[in-house]
Amino acid sequence: RRAEMAKSTQLIDNEVFRAYATYTAIVLLKMMLMSLVTAYFRITRKAFVNPEDTASFGKGESAKKFLRTDPDVERARRGHLNDLENIVPFVGIGLLYALSGPELSTALLHFRIFTGARIFHTFAYLIPLPQPGRGLSWAVGYSVTFSMAYKVLKTAWLL
Amino acid sequence: RRAEMAKSTQLIDNEVFRAYATYTAIVLLKMMLMSLVTAYFRITRKAFVNPEDTASFGKGESAKKFLRTDPDVERARRGHLNDLENIVPFVGIGLLYALSGPELSTALLHFRIFTGARIFHTFAYLIPLPQPGRGLSWAVGYSVTFSMAYKVLKTAWLL
Amino acid sequence: RRAEMAKSTQLIDNEVFRAYATYTAIVLLKMMLMSLVTAYFRITRKAFVNPEDTASFGKGESAKKFLRTDPDVERARRGHLNDLENIVPFVGIGLLYALSGPELSTALLHFRIFTGARIFHTFAYLIPLPQPGRGLSWAVGYSVTFSMAYKVLKTAWLL
Repeated sequence: RRAEMAKSTQLIDNEVFRAYATYTAIVLLKMMLMSLVTAYFRITRKAFVNPEDTASFGKGESAKKFLRTDPDVERARRGHLNDLENIVPFVGIGLLYALSGPELSTALLHFRIFTGARIFHTFAYLIPLPQPGRGLSWAVGYSVTFSMAYKVLKTAWLL
Repeated sequence: RRAEMAKSTQLIDNEVFRAYATYTAIVLLKMMLMSLVTAYFRITRKAFVNPEDTASFGKGESAKKFLRTDPDVERARRGHLNDLENIVPFVGIGLLYALSGPELSTALLHFRIFTGARIFHTFAYLIPLPQPGRGLSWAVGYSVTFSMAYKVLKTAWLL
Repeated sequence: RRAEMAKSTQLIDNEVFRAYATYTAIVLLKMMLMSLVTAYFRITRKAFVNPEDTASFGKGESAKKFLRTDPDVERARRGHLNDLENIVPFVGIGLLYALSGPELSTALLHFRIFTGARIFHTFAYLIPLPQPGRGLSWAVGYSVTFSMAYKVLKTAWLL
């Protein structure tokens, strides 16, 4: 399998890039799971936003009452949006960081802390845990991305 | 032109990567079009959110009445957000997948099904089509991204 | 440092890619700053959305009054979402564009105009400036991404 991969590209043979690929896949899958969490709450709480989604509950007024907001649905949606706001910069800056030639151990430290912080953040948001649990896990992930951006700009700077 | 490209990078000469580049450009352009759809509905329905956007309709109370929500505008915005939630993972995981050495035919199958599913999803959302049309197209795109993530993790796994 | 980077990857030695890395890091950091702007307005305007975030202001009814929306908070959030909608396509299409072998001067022109337009857009949204300031800066960034997508599709087209 190695030979076959080398034919198509050498990037995946680079250990830092493989680490990046692993943790990026994990955090993006974690972000995708938020869709299922939101769908779960929409169905169990019967709280929908599109009229066509409530058609199976009956017609007219009897279905209209399910077009409403629910605190659990809204909480899951906020968690999802927070993921987008924080995981998108990680994926973009992390790719550039992985290509900027960091030490494998340093790169793994960045990727692992970010991934752990975002998984903790999701639990802190959904349970919810008392503050500053969610706030701190957000700040840890934010700082990791900032640290990678610093390395990228130091290495690549070309204005 | 080929020689010039080879100088700058070999990635674009890889057929799987070229397929990735093509379909990623298409789905990102499709996502960008949602901004124009939202703008179209805001202008035709006269439904704005920023006071400075209604200044051309007059001053004071006469302009304030256009600061309102409209079902078509909100529907376009939900379609746009759903694109962000699903196309971002496709772009990130798809890049890693394209670099993990898949067969060209398998890769094309993934990219084409995802692109078709998301285009159908947009029509299903905006028309709107009765369920489960939109739900199924969402699930197809979601599954394609999941399948690519599985291949990435199997190839690159480095925790 | 050069030799060490060359070991890990040659991409970062490509001048167009270094320009891409620089401007992508800058616009992603700018987008991340929107989180701090929103947090600043939430704290100074005392306008929160999660009950656990207001616990430090007291218990019961006295804390509940801070669970409210505020125009400045909502404005910052809209600016953040607009960044996601526009910077995500730039990062994705820009990467493919950088790998498609453009002239360095042409690439720098694209990256610089986009970055300038998005920074102006943020100020236009937050101050706010009268229209069409915000609208034009949005359209400039949008057009730059469109122009890069055209080059990508012309170079990589493989359906």
